Amino acid sequence: MNPKRCAACKYLRRRCPKDCIFSPYFPPNDPDKFACIHRIYGAGNVSKMLQQLPVQTRAEAVESLSFEAKCRVEDPVYGCVGIISLLQTQIRKTQTLLAKTQAEIAVAQTKHSQHTNL
Amino acid sequence: MNPKRCAACKYLRRRCPKDCIFSPYFPPNDPDKFACIHRIYGAGNVSKMLQQLPVQTRAEAVESLSFEAKCRVEDPVYGCVGIISLLQTQIRKTQTLLAKTQAEIAVAQTKHSQHTNL
Repeated sequence: MNPKRCAACKYLRRRCPKDCIFSPYFPPNDPDKFACIHRIYGAGNVSKMLQQLPVQTRAEAVESLSFEAKCRVEDPVYGCVGIISLLQTQIRKTQTLLAKTQAEIAVAQTKHSQHTNL
Repeated sequence: MNPKRCAACKYLRRRCPKDCIFSPYFPPNDPDKFACIHRIYGAGNVSKMLQQLPVQTRAEAVESLSFEAKCRVEDPVYGCVGIISLLQTQIRKTQTLLAKTQAEIAVAQTKHSQHTNL
């Protein structure tokens, strides 16, 4: 057993090769990160997705896949699309509030100019 | 060949069983929906995820999985997490604008009350 195996190879109970595609992104001290990704996408799919990406973008891809997988485990029906819906609702509410505030300002300005014109 | 096979069974070149877990959500006239989901998650993983959910929540789960898969195909690095970042930036900008507007109102009100107290 190699104690330096990455979390992915540890999970998959295999030797961690020198050119392991997972090892830069799945340190052995965070086993949940890989477990989550494996549960949702499967190790083979993640490996395929990473291989199709330029090396310098893989760390960010792993982070976004990890985030989506974690959301899907926590919310199996909506996953991180639930967060998108929530944010969109928040934006709509804020836009309504902004429009209301702008209308109030317009009313206040009209009253003010009528007052100063008297 | 059964012309009524669902898009998933058509894609997987198999007979569509009566109790097919995919058929209610993957009509034969939308083959891309399944192709996308299969490419990102794999048919086996999607089938497993759906089986673990109550039937009445599966349609919404398929929609959110479909959306995430489509985003991942279009943006292989950030997927739909890119949308979340975008929305969060939009919210931060709107909050800044709202704070600025509220400050302007406060200044205008102070000036107004000074003016009417003269």
